[in-house]
Amino acid sequence: MHYELYYWPGIQGRGEFVRLALEEASADYADVARLSGRDKGLTAMMYFLENSKINCPPFAPPFLKAGKIIIAQTSNILQYLGPQLGLVPKAGATRLWAHQLQLTIADFVGEIHDVHHPVSGSLYYHQQKSEAKRRAGFFTQERIAKFLYYFERVLKGNPEGSNYMLGRRLSYVDLSIFQLIAGLRYAFPKRMKQLEPEYPRLVTVHDRIASRPNIAIYLTSDRRMPFNNNDVFRYYPELDT
Amino acid sequence: MHYELYYWPGIQGRGEFVRLALEEASADYADVARLSGRDKGLTAMMYFLENSKINCPPFAPPFLKAGKIIIAQTSNILQYLGPQLGLVPKAGATRLWAHQLQLTIADFVGEIHDVHHPVSGSLYYHQQKSEAKRRAGFFTQERIAKFLYYFERVLKGNPEGSNYMLGRRLSYVDLSIFQLIAGLRYAFPKRMKQLEPEYPRLVTVHDRIASRPNIAIYLTSDRRMPFNNNDVFRYYPELDT
Repeated sequence: MHYELYYWPGIQGRGEFVRLALEEASADYADVARLSGRDKGLTAMMYFLENSKINCPPFAPPFLKAGKIIIAQTSNILQYLGPQLGLVPKAGATRLWAHQLQLTIADFVGEIHDVHHPVSGSLYYHQQKSEAKRRAGFFTQERIAKFLYYFERVLKGNPEGSNYMLGRRLSYVDLSIFQLIAGLRYAFPKRMKQLEPEYPRLVTVHDRIASRPNIAIYLTSDRRMPFNNNDVFRYYPELDT
Repeated sequence: MHYELYYWPGIQGRGEFVRLALEEASADYADVARLSGRDKGLTAMMYFLENSKINCPPFAPPFLKAGKIIIAQTSNILQYLGPQLGLVPKAGATRLWAHQLQLTIADFVGEIHDVHHPVSGSLYYHQQKSEAKRRAGFFTQERIAKFLYYFERVLKGNPEGSNYMLGRRLSYVDLSIFQLIAGLRYAFPKRMKQLEPEYPRLVTVHDRIASRPNIAIYLTSDRRMPFNNNDVFRYYPELDT
């Protein structure tokens, strides 16, 4: 199957959770909005968002085109791709559990984004900096630890062992945990340095994912965009308290 | 199948999206945290959140116990219940689409909550009122219309007709659209009065759901809690701009 991924060019964003799954599985995919040429680039992406003739239109990127179907919402895309890419166990209850974890990661990512944009996505950061600083205090003191504690607890409680978030093989959830830790290290380096010793299993998952052959190649390729301050994970020293 | 729903007592919250599906289908369920007695009430709910021996622990309510499995995340619960309650079509692609719409409703609900809590869920509203007022301006001027326009477009574009969000029969997505419109009317009555004429199909879905026999009985029963200002949808006149 050939997949077409559509996401805002220039940032990792929520699209990165999908890219990591496609890259790990050496899937045949095009990152359409980053390409140039006919039926490529941002114009190709906007077509699906704005054309009123599209059935099942996405509300926002990322979305995936697989044959005739178009699937949006990061967690939904991963739920769809998981079985096709061999990145989730077969049992139905385990797939629900994988998806539940992915949705909790998505909630965390939403909170991380809103630290620098607590008022509106239509304003620049500098236009909502005072609100962001106030929110960041609560985020770094309460929310990061609440989520990391939860995911560490899930790893610790995995009856098949703490090498993976679920079962005894890699799933797309592990890849997303890698991205979460990497992003938090970029955005909140001081706070993460304090917190990481409390979550050794999560750090180990991060490191093991980073050294998987396909992921290691991806991370040094041009396909992996660097973290930057137009993205979900942003480094503003004044928010890293 | 007997279902146990666990959610914070005293508010509709995210649990209400699940209740509406269970009520429409006349499912056999207990709203455990609202009951008193042994193994009931808030204590019973906290057991699943805090006991380190629980496999597949929820991060937060709502969660559903169905036989031996525990499922969290509102949209995931509805995805699980949909086929069992006859509230989603059979085709796999249609189920992905229903879930995608539900996840977009969940994003909208998150934004609605954060209008009155833009800084932290650990603070009271009056402690973040100035930030809330600023956020509310952008929410009422941009975000409400962006989401409602999208859902109206989905209804208009349904190839089976605009009576339902997808296909030609009721799904759990329609029930959630009802709750969304009802909640927005409670929280932002002035703004909704201005906006509703632009989204006639959504209003019609709301009205038709409200008059379905099982839903009509539910809405006048004690099981339906009234909207209130401890909930996701809150009415603060100063935010209804």
